[in-house]
Amino acid sequence: MADHAQTVRDYWAAAERRAWDDFAETLSPEVVYDVPQTHERVVGRDRYLAFNRAYPGDWHVDVRRVVADAQGAVAWTTFRVGDQEMTGVHFFLFDDAGRITRVDDFWPEPYEPPPGREHLVERY
Amino acid sequence: MADHAQTVRDYWAAAERRAWDDFAETLSPEVVYDVPQTHERVVGRDRYLAFNRAYPGDWHVDVRRVVADAQGAVAWTTFRVGDQEMTGVHFFLFDDAGRITRVDDFWPEPYEPPPGREHLVERY
Repeated sequence: MADHAQTVRDYWAAAERRAWDDFAETLSPEVVYDVPQTHERVVGRDRYLAFNRAYPGDWHVDVRRVVADAQGAVAWTTFRVGDQEMTGVHFFLFDDAGRITRVDDFWPEPYEPPPGREHLVERY
Repeated sequence: MADHAQTVRDYWAAAERRAWDDFAETLSPEVVYDVPQTHERVVGRDRYLAFNRAYPGDWHVDVRRVVADAQGAVAWTTFRVGDQEMTGVHFFLFDDAGRITRVDDFWPEPYEPPPGREHLVERY
Protein backbone atom coordinates (compact mmCIF):
# COMPACT_ATOMS: atom_id res chain seq x y z
CA MET A 1 0.00 0.00 0.00
CA ALA A 2 1.22 3.48 -0.85
CA ASP A 3 1.90 5.72 2.14
CA HIS A 4 -1.10 8.02 1.84
CA ALA A 5 -0.17 10.04 4.93
CA GLN A 6 3.24 10.81 3.42
CA THR A 7 1.66 11.74 0.07
CA VAL A 8 -0.58 14.25 1.85
CA ARG A 9 2.42 15.71 3.71
CA ASP A 10 4.34 15.94 0.41
CA TYR A 11 1.36 17.67 -1.23
CA TRP A 12 1.22 20.36 1.47
CA ALA A 13 5.00 20.78 1.68
CA ALA A 14 5.13 21.30 -2.10
CA ALA A 15 2.24 23.78 -1.96
CA GLU A 16 3.97 25.74 0.82
CA ARG A 17 7.20 25.90 -1.27
CA ARG A 18 5.22 26.73 -4.46
CA ALA A 19 7.08 23.72 -5.91
CA TRP A 20 4.44 23.00 -8.51
CA ASP A 21 6.31 20.18 -10.25
CA ASP A 22 6.55 18.33 -6.92
CA PHE A 23 2.91 19.16 -6.20
CA ALA A 24 1.89 17.73 -9.59
CA GLU A 25 3.68 14.45 -8.82
CA THR A 26 1.21 13.76 -5.99
CA LEU A 27 -1.77 14.07 -8.38
CA SER A 28 -3.49 11.74 -10.82
CA PRO A 29 -3.98 13.32 -14.28
CA GLU A 30 -7.72 12.78 -13.67
CA VAL A 31 -7.81 14.45 -10.23
CA VAL A 32 -11.12 16.09 -9.31
CA TYR A 33 -11.22 18.90 -6.72
CA ASP A 34 -14.54 19.80 -5.05
CA VAL A 35 -15.57 22.52 -2.62
CA PRO A 36 -18.83 21.14 -1.19
CA GLN A 37 -19.72 24.46 0.47
CA THR A 38 -19.73 26.37 -2.84
CA HIS A 39 -20.38 23.47 -5.24
CA GLU A 40 -17.23 24.39 -7.17
CA ARG A 41 -15.37 21.67 -9.08
CA VAL A 42 -12.01 21.68 -10.87
CA VAL A 43 -11.42 18.73 -13.21
CA GLY A 44 -7.99 17.46 -14.21
CA ARG A 45 -4.42 17.99 -13.06
CA ASP A 46 -3.62 20.85 -15.44
CA ARG A 47 -6.57 22.95 -14.34
CA TYR A 48 -6.02 22.06 -10.69
CA LEU A 49 -2.39 23.18 -10.96
CA ALA A 50 -3.50 26.45 -12.58
CA PHE A 51 -6.10 26.92 -9.84
CA ASN A 52 -3.47 26.51 -7.10
CA ARG A 53 -0.78 28.59 -8.84
CA ALA A 54 -3.25 31.44 -9.28
CA TYR A 55 -4.57 31.29 -5.70
CA PRO A 56 -4.27 34.87 -4.42
CA GLY A 57 -2.49 36.05 -1.28
CA ASP A 58 0.84 35.28 0.40
CA TRP A 59 -0.60 32.26 2.18
CA HIS A 60 1.28 29.79 4.37
CA VAL A 61 0.02 26.43 5.49
CA ASP A 62 0.69 24.41 8.66
CA VAL A 63 -0.48 20.82 8.75
CA ARG A 64 -2.07 20.15 12.16
CA ARG A 65 -3.13 16.55 11.71
CA VAL A 66 -3.14 13.84 9.03
CA VAL A 67 -5.25 10.68 9.28
CA ALA A 68 -4.84 8.07 6.53
CA ASP A 69 -5.89 4.52 5.71
CA ALA A 70 -5.84 2.18 2.72
CA GLN A 71 -8.58 4.12 0.87
CA GLY A 72 -8.11 7.75 1.77
CA ALA A 73 -6.74 10.46 3.99
CA VAL A 74 -7.76 13.67 5.73
CA ALA A 75 -5.69 16.71 6.65
CA TRP A 76 -6.53 19.46 9.14
CA THR A 77 -4.59 22.60 8.28
CA THR A 78 -4.16 26.19 9.39
CA PHE A 79 -3.72 28.76 6.63
CA ARG A 80 -2.18 32.13 7.47
CA VAL A 81 -2.25 35.29 5.35
CA GLY A 82 -0.58 38.04 7.34
CA ASP A 83 -2.37 38.19 10.71
CA GLN A 84 -5.38 36.22 9.48
CA GLU A 85 -5.85 32.53 10.15
CA MET A 86 -8.19 30.10 8.41
CA THR A 87 -8.90 26.44 9.07
CA GLY A 88 -8.95 23.93 6.24
CA VAL A 89 -10.16 20.33 6.28
CA HIS A 90 -9.22 18.28 3.22
CA PHE A 91 -10.44 14.78 2.30
CA PHE A 92 -8.35 12.77 -0.20
CA LEU A 93 -8.85 9.62 -2.27
CA PHE A 94 -6.08 7.81 -4.19
CA ASP A 95 -5.52 5.54 -7.20
CA ASP A 96 -3.66 2.22 -7.02
CA ALA A 97 -0.37 4.00 -7.68
CA GLY A 98 -0.94 6.22 -4.62
CA ARG A 99 -1.70 9.41 -6.56
CA ILE A 100 -4.50 11.71 -5.45
CA THR A 101 -7.68 11.24 -7.52
CA ARG A 102 -10.01 13.39 -5.46
CA VAL A 103 -9.85 16.30 -3.01
CA ASP A 104 -12.86 17.62 -1.07
CA ASP A 105 -11.98 20.91 0.65
CA PHE A 106 -13.87 22.44 3.57
CA TRP A 107 -13.22 25.95 4.92
CA PRO A 108 -15.23 26.22 8.16
CA GLU A 109 -15.63 29.77 9.48
CA PRO A 110 -15.92 31.01 13.07
CA TYR A 111 -19.46 31.62 14.36
CA GLU A 112 -21.23 32.54 17.57
CA PRO A 113 -22.27 29.58 19.74
CA PRO A 114 -26.00 28.91 19.93
CA PRO A 115 -27.61 29.82 23.28
CA GLY A 116 -28.93 27.30 25.81
CA ARG A 117 -25.89 25.12 26.47
CA GLU A 118 -23.78 27.43 28.60
CA HIS A 119 -24.25 25.19 31.65
CA LEU A 120 -22.42 22.35 29.89
CA VAL A 121 -19.85 24.31 27.90
CA GLU A 122 -16.64 26.20 28.68
CA ARG A 123 -15.09 28.72 26.27
CA TYR A 124 -11.40 28.54 25.38
CA MET B 1 -4.87 -2.05 17.70
CA ALA B 2 -8.51 -1.22 18.41
CA ASP B 3 -10.69 -0.80 15.33
CA HIS B 4 -11.05 2.97 15.40
CA ALA B 5 -13.18 3.09 12.25
CA GLN B 6 -15.67 0.68 13.81
CA THR B 7 -15.75 2.69 17.05
CA VAL B 8 -16.61 5.81 15.07
CA ARG B 9 -19.39 3.94 13.22
CA ASP B 10 -20.69 2.61 16.57
CA TYR B 11 -20.64 6.16 18.01
CA TRP B 12 -22.77 7.54 15.17
CA ALA B 13 -25.11 4.54 15.05
CA ALA B 14 -25.75 4.90 18.79
CA ALA B 15 -26.33 8.66 18.43
CA GLU B 16 -28.81 8.06 15.60
CA ARG B 17 -30.70 5.53 17.77
CA ARG B 18 -30.48 7.83 20.85
CA ALA B 19 -28.96 4.73 22.52
CA TRP B 20 -27.03 6.76 25.08
CA ASP B 21 -25.66 3.78 27.01
CA ASP B 22 -24.12 2.42 23.82
CA PHE B 23 -22.89 5.89 22.94
CA ALA B 24 -21.23 6.20 26.37
CA GLU B 25 -19.37 2.91 25.84
CA THR B 26 -17.40 4.48 22.99
CA LEU B 27 -16.17 7.30 25.24
CA SER B 28 -13.36 7.68 27.76
CA PRO B 29 -14.55 9.13 31.10
CA GLU B 30 -12.11 11.97 30.40
CA VAL B 31 -13.34 12.74 26.90
CA VAL B 32 -12.96 16.36 25.76
CA TYR B 33 -15.22 17.78 23.02
CA ASP B 34 -14.19 20.97 21.22
CA VAL B 35 -15.86 23.13 18.59
CA PRO B 36 -12.91 25.09 17.14
CA GLN B 37 -15.21 27.51 15.27
CA THR B 38 -16.93 28.71 18.48
CA HIS B 39 -14.20 27.87 21.01
CA GLU B 40 -16.71 25.80 22.98
CA ARG B 41 -15.44 22.90 25.09
CA VAL B 42 -17.29 20.14 26.97
CA VAL B 43 -15.16 18.23 29.50
CA GLY B 44 -15.93 14.69 30.70
CA ARG B 45 -18.23 11.89 29.62
CA ASP B 46 -21.16 12.85 31.86
CA ARG B 47 -21.34 16.40 30.56
CA TYR B 48 -20.77 15.25 26.99
CA LEU B 49 -23.65 12.79 27.29
CA ALA B 50 -25.88 15.53 28.69
CA PHE B 51 -24.81 17.84 25.85
CA ASN B 52 -25.79 15.25 23.23
CA ARG B 53 -29.01 14.14 24.93
CA ALA B 54 -30.15 17.77 25.11
CA TYR B 55 -29.22 18.61 21.53
CA PRO B 56 -32.37 20.16 20.06
CA GLY B 57 -34.23 19.08 16.93
CA ASP B 58 -35.26 15.77 15.38
CA TRP B 59 -31.87 15.30 13.73
CA HIS B 60 -30.73 12.27 11.74
CA VAL B 61 -27.17 11.51 10.76
CA ASP B 62 -25.70 9.71 7.74
CA VAL B 63 -22.03 8.81 7.81
CA ARG B 64 -20.54 9.62 4.41
CA ARG B 65 -16.93 8.64 5.02
CA VAL B 66 -14.71 7.38 7.84
CA VAL B 67 -10.89 7.49 7.72
CA ALA B 68 -8.99 5.92 10.61
CA ASP B 69 -5.45 4.99 11.59
CA ALA B 70 -3.60 3.87 14.72
CA GLN B 71 -3.84 7.31 16.37
CA GLY B 72 -7.14 8.78 15.29
CA ALA B 73 -10.08 8.93 12.95
CA VAL B 74 -12.20 11.39 11.00
CA ALA B 75 -15.86 11.19 9.98
CA TRP B 76 -17.67 13.21 7.31
CA THR B 77 -21.40 13.26 8.06
CA THR B 78 -24.63 14.71 6.76
CA PHE B 79 -27.14 15.86 9.38
CA ARG B 80 -30.77 16.26 8.39
CA VAL B 81 -33.48 18.10 10.33
CA GLY B 82 -36.67 18.03 8.23
CA ASP B 83 -35.72 19.43 4.82
CA GLN B 84 -32.50 21.03 6.06
CA GLU B 85 -29.08 19.44 5.60
CA MET B 86 -25.85 20.26 7.40
CA THR B 87 -22.36 18.89 6.91
CA GLY B 88 -20.28 17.77 9.89
CA VAL B 89 -16.58 16.91 10.01
CA HIS B 90 -15.43 15.20 13.21
CA PHE B 91 -11.86 14.43 14.29
CA PHE B 92 -11.34 11.75 16.96
CA LEU B 93 -8.46 10.62 19.18
CA PHE B 94 -8.44 7.42 21.29
CA ASP B 95 -6.90 5.93 24.42
CA ASP B 96 -5.07 2.60 24.49
CA ALA B 97 -8.36 0.79 25.17
CA GLY B 98 -9.82 2.25 21.97
CA ARG B 99 -12.19 4.69 23.70
CA ILE B 100 -12.63 8.21 22.36
CA THR B 101 -10.63 10.79 24.34
CA ARG B 102 -11.14 13.77 22.11
CA VAL B 103 -13.61 15.03 19.51
CA ASP B 104 -13.09 18.16 17.41
CA ASP B 105 -16.27 19.06 15.53
CA PHE B 106 -16.50 21.31 12.48
CA TRP B 107 -19.77 22.53 10.95
CA PRO B 108 -18.84 24.19 7.65
CA GLU B 109 -21.61 26.29 6.12
CA PRO B 110 -22.39 27.03 2.46
CA TYR B 111 -20.98 30.27 1.03
CA GLU B 112 -20.74 32.09 -2.28
CA PRO B 113 -17.60 31.27 -4.28
CA PRO B 114 -15.06 34.09 -4.58
CA PRO B 115 -14.87 35.73 -8.03
CA GLY B 116 -11.95 35.39 -10.43
CA ARG B 117 -11.70 31.64 -10.90
CA GLU B 118 -14.69 30.94 -13.08
CA HIS B 119 -12.44 30.00 -16.04
CA LEU B 120 -11.06 27.03 -14.06
CA VAL B 121 -14.14 26.00 -12.11
CA GLU B 122 -17.42 24.23 -12.87
CA ARG B 123 -20.45 24.37 -10.58
CA TYR B 124 -22.28 21.21 -9.56
